Amino acid sequence: MSPSAPEPKYQLSYWPLPFRGCFISYLFAYRDVPLLEQTDFAEIDALRRTRVKDQSVPFMGPPVLRELATDRALSQMPAIVLYVSRELELVPDASFEAAMCMKVLMDCNDVLMEICRYNGSSVWRRNEWVEFRRKRLPHWLSIFEESLTRGFIGNEPVTFADIAIVALFGNMMRCLPELEPDVITAAPGIHQLCSRIGAKPTLAAFINSEAERYGKLYCGGQIEASIRAMLEQDSRETQ
Amino acid sequence: MSPSAPEPKYQLSYWPLPFRGCFISYLFAYRDVPLLEQTDFAEIDALRRTRVKDQSVPFMGPPVLRELATDRALSQMPAIVLYVSRELELVPDASFEAAMCMKVLMDCNDVLMEICRYNGSSVWRRNEWVEFRRKRLPHWLSIFEESLTRGFIGNEPVTFADIAIVALFGNMMRCLPELEPDVITAAPGIHQLCSRIGAKPTLAAFINSEAERYGKLYCGGQIEASIRAMLEQDSRETQ
Repeated sequence: MSPSAPEPKYQLSYWPLPFRGCFISYLFAYRDVPLLEQTDFAEIDALRRTRVKDQSVPFMGPPVLRELATDRALSQMPAIVLYVSRELELVPDASFEAAMCMKVLMDCNDVLMEICRYNGSSVWRRNEWVEFRRKRLPHWLSIFEESLTRGFIGNEPVTFADIAIVALFGNMMRCLPELEPDVITAAPGIHQLCSRIGAKPTLAAFINSEAERYGKLYCGGQIEASIRAMLEQDSRETQ
Repeated sequence: MSPSAPEPKYQLSYWPLPFRGCFISYLFAYRDVPLLEQTDFAEIDALRRTRVKDQSVPFMGPPVLRELATDRALSQMPAIVLYVSRELELVPDASFEAAMCMKVLMDCNDVLMEICRYNGSSVWRRNEWVEFRRKRLPHWLSIFEESLTRGFIGNEPVTFADIAIVALFGNMMRCLPELEPDVITAAPGIHQLCSRIGAKPTLAAFINSEAERYGKLYCGGQIEASIRAMLEQDSRETQ
């Protein structure tokens, strides 16, 4: 950090990969507001295993955001996004439009949960993956595309819902490029939105730094291995 | 409805059981504000299967809330709760406290997802259920109890997070009474909070009307059957 950069006001604790954490870190990067990141695997695992009474906020899993000045902490990605988006001026003023942004964020969270098999409760089996890629994913993409068509996302000023789209589909296409044609086909406007928002220089620089740190690491572990095995089989079958 | 009752401003569309819908309907009942409910199974199923372009809001699954005057609609339970809670004055003014309520709501939603096996992606297997009842559920309960101890819930004025606790654990204990001792043991304060909030006459009357309409129906289908089979086996094994 340059000596003139402001001090970060928040610390984000999350596993050493973008996945769910980037829904939060991209907000800061978009606004060029500094964020302290704690991403050491052993440290995050220790936080998670700390007795509930001793945790900064009682929580089941990361991300956790800590406000450095007050030592107050929050868990649950959508709650953290809601909180920091107010500070970063990424929430519409009108109550209905703000709720619609939360709806889009929850849709993103649902897709994330589906692709990582509900935080890894089971690996992908072939018949389930085929159903996901042929039906569920295009169905979800059509929901996002229609949300764009109706103007729930993609407007000026940019909202946390727009950045959530980049955190979900931008990061997905970067880490699992085999899925980019799926997005282009079912949701060309969403593909364009990812490019447009992701081109903001401060966000683009942050995404590059994540690519340098983590490569194409997606959700990690056995689940990621099973996603990659499925994608490989898909590409063999279409040759 | 009596001729003097105000006209409902919203319609809630959800399956004919309380489960995820009651996180919304309990807010209205608590405030004694009328809510139009659409719960016919065939109608809800038809909404869900409607082409995305023709849906009132592009969505994957219910609940859906429609504002009758404007015909605007929202999906995603946490987004709907956020929106109607502002109107019903169940959101703290301060941004951090409002986000903490959202954190508690998301915790509730996670428990709901675990117990219904992520909207029914698989039935309960014995080893997974034993792990859930012995470890995950008490762990979750300790998180909620600690949230109460720290004053994130259980205060005056009541918030949507307090009512979410009743929607999750009050409804769970009513439908699956075998689990009430689990709640009393791991989270006595949460048990008390459920009784206190649930005793508000207008909410108590609404819960009674749901009990008359649906009996102890919980999440329905094969998943509910597998929960009940597990609970039965638990009780045989402890005799």
